[in-house]
Amino acid sequence: MTKPLRLGIAGLGTVGIGMVKIVQNHANKLALRAGRPIEISAVSARDKTKDRGADLSAYAWEDDAVALAQRDDVDVYVELMGGHDGPAKDSIEAAITAGKDVVTANKALLAIHGQALAEQAEAAGQVIRFEAAVAGGIPVVKALTEGLAGNEITRVMGVMNGSCNYILTRMQDAGLTYEEVFDEANALGYLEADPQLDVGGIDAAHKLAILASIAYGTQVDFDAVDLEGIGSVTIEDINQAADMGYRIKLLGVAQLTGRGLEQRMSPCLVPDTSPLGQLQGGTNMVVLEGDAVEQIVLRGPGAGEGPTASAVAADVIDIGRGLRLPTFGQPATSLVKARPARAAVSAPYYIRLQIVDKPGSLAKIAAVLGDAGVSIDRMRQYGHSEPSAPILIVTHKTTRTAIDEAMEGCVATGLVEGDPVTIRIETV
Amino acid sequence: MTKPLRLGIAGLGTVGIGMVKIVQNHANKLALRAGRPIEISAVSARDKTKDRGADLSAYAWEDDAVALAQRDDVDVYVELMGGHDGPAKDSIEAAITAGKDVVTANKALLAIHGQALAEQAEAAGQVIRFEAAVAGGIPVVKALTEGLAGNEITRVMGVMNGSCNYILTRMQDAGLTYEEVFDEANALGYLEADPQLDVGGIDAAHKLAILASIAYGTQVDFDAVDLEGIGSVTIEDINQAADMGYRIKLLGVAQLTGRGLEQRMSPCLVPDTSPLGQLQGGTNMVVLEGDAVEQIVLRGPGAGEGPTASAVAADVIDIGRGLRLPTFGQPATSLVKARPARAAVSAPYYIRLQIVDKPGSLAKIAAVLGDAGVSIDRMRQYGHSEPSAPILIVTHKTTRTAIDEAMEGCVATGLVEGDPVTIRIETV
Repeated sequence: MTKPLRLGIAGLGTVGIGMVKIVQNHANKLALRAGRPIEISAVSARDKTKDRGADLSAYAWEDDAVALAQRDDVDVYVELMGGHDGPAKDSIEAAITAGKDVVTANKALLAIHGQALAEQAEAAGQVIRFEAAVAGGIPVVKALTEGLAGNEITRVMGVMNGSCNYILTRMQDAGLTYEEVFDEANALGYLEADPQLDVGGIDAAHKLAILASIAYGTQVDFDAVDLEGIGSVTIEDINQAADMGYRIKLLGVAQLTGRGLEQRMSPCLVPDTSPLGQLQGGTNMVVLEGDAVEQIVLRGPGAGEGPTASAVAADVIDIGRGLRLPTFGQPATSLVKARPARAAVSAPYYIRLQIVDKPGSLAKIAAVLGDAGVSIDRMRQYGHSEPSAPILIVTHKTTRTAIDEAMEGCVATGLVEGDPVTIRIETV
Repeated sequence: MTKPLRLGIAGLGTVGIGMVKIVQNHANKLALRAGRPIEISAVSARDKTKDRGADLSAYAWEDDAVALAQRDDVDVYVELMGGHDGPAKDSIEAAITAGKDVVTANKALLAIHGQALAEQAEAAGQVIRFEAAVAGGIPVVKALTEGLAGNEITRVMGVMNGSCNYILTRMQDAGLTYEEVFDEANALGYLEADPQLDVGGIDAAHKLAILASIAYGTQVDFDAVDLEGIGSVTIEDINQAADMGYRIKLLGVAQLTGRGLEQRMSPCLVPDTSPLGQLQGGTNMVVLEGDAVEQIVLRGPGAGEGPTASAVAADVIDIGRGLRLPTFGQPATSLVKARPARAAVSAPYYIRLQIVDKPGSLAKIAAVLGDAGVSIDRMRQYGHSEPSAPILIVTHKTTRTAIDEAMEGCVATGLVEGDPVTIRIETV
């Protein structure tokens, strides 16, 4: 049999231990599939003494990830520590310099330093693979980079943060407020130490920026993601949207338009009959659209020991099999800087306004919308007996600018109480 | 730039022309992604004079696919003619002998001759790739072979014949009989020249047998697929199943059990809230389950010019990138002959019986089921005023043998009119 592929694994949290278990439990299978045995030479984590539920005694231990990355008996450096700077970045750079290939699950690192790392790796003839960085166990990086490589990609969409989707579906199912479910999810340990990474949409936006780079041949540009978390989603809007046949999702969308690359991560309405609309709980879903393939939908667990380790193992096996792709699917030096486009793609919008219930109010609001060029598809009014009543509007396709102008106009009438709510409806 | 990868394309139907268009329209993108230009040297089809809506004048023409496969200016032979013997097989064998790699969309050929072809190719150091053979544009061969390579696969399921799914959903939506929708579909050109390939489940079973080989490291064994088409599905069962919260799908399932490899392609009930249950029309869906990844669901177009050509292009680009895998993901000589297992995996069943409506009938039927070891989960009876009335039963998990025994017993009571209907409920 050919020479084994020797791993150095840094980071022994759930994913790291999941990967150790796969290597230990599936040695024969992995060797057959990779064409060579896959072995672990050494591991590294913060605390050597901690019981992690796996036997690590056969592996060398390094306290320092950089030292691990440079070991002579390591062919592939597997970085599972996380963090977009510090030891994760230092050790990956050291691994590349030392002639190692790299497998990582680190979405933040790639979203921020992906271009520089890709250039460094490709100049050195090393590969960086990162299936686990996006949507956990779903092989979406592979599907996009390889499976749809014959396509001009026209749209990438996804629900890529399980915690947010859990919160939004739980709000709807239990009729609870955002704050109530947030506290519940936090107590259950569903949220990152810094919950803004989840509920602020940052984690999902990291993933979107990575997919956009692969899809459009552009340099990853996390800062250009138009980012809005789920903190302002109310149970009222979830219920009203449901009444109109929609669900609210934290949806990432990346589209290359004539005006530049639009990357959005924000709450959106999607039809409740669509695959995205039907996605419950912590599951992830990515929708890939291309000129030839039309639409592919991928669904699966976005996190967890097994699923994420499955993705890490796939990358390792690919390297064992001799697959040597540029990091983002084409040479890093060929990736272009895309002009960021904000709100370039028009869409229908959901609008909720609380209006003073007096004769002519509705007509006046409708007129203001018309003046702004916003055309109404459907409208509902509730609770006529109250001094003010909510009206719900679904518009035809329009621009963000027109919606903003229309809302300013509505507020200026003095007929609107509080702030208007406007949420994009993504056509899926 | 490195040397171009030169294609010879045999078969210029929709898929072949779709592939020609991708090569022509996306030359720059393909070159960047494959790391080298992708060019077409020569093409072949039955009729040179036919207008196919694409400019083929720059390519050499061969009347004979074998001659095309052996041309010096061809690196990759792309077989898109179809048929499990004759020119398709001859030309692929000739291509391998002549030192070419092969890309094919030919499920029948692989399901029947896959093992021999894989052994021949691997002995010669050539690769055979066939993403387009299974589920059209969905990159499921890649997801299974590469994306989930770190897993022990525990179940492969899929709705992999769009025509059957179209027929079944159309029956339900329009309240039409199987015969009515069959004629409609045939008139619309949705069915193969030999419709049994579709409605008999053969085409879908080819695909299942291929996926099973990859999933379980077994030699592809199409003859062992337990095959039942959709011809016996009635609108009555579709409606009754809907009443109980299920949809009827032509579902392929492959599972490696202690008793051997079970491969089934048959009408099954699935919950109407599941991704499989919600699949409408001609779309395909494959569900892959593994010990680490849990469950991945892939959904997309299972046929058509663009989607199928997208899969062909992905294979070509993979070869351009230097990916050289064994045909079924591990060396063909390491694939084991699996013992076929029939009905090894127990499941709940849906039963519809027309019983004579007299006192004690129901109790007697229930007793017969109990004696056969079949435990009832839910039961419904309709139309007490009629001389006979249908009863619907959903059982707890049981075996095919127990169900068959129970039905024999029910018929023996003399209380059952006509043949009992029993349909497996797949847990998804």
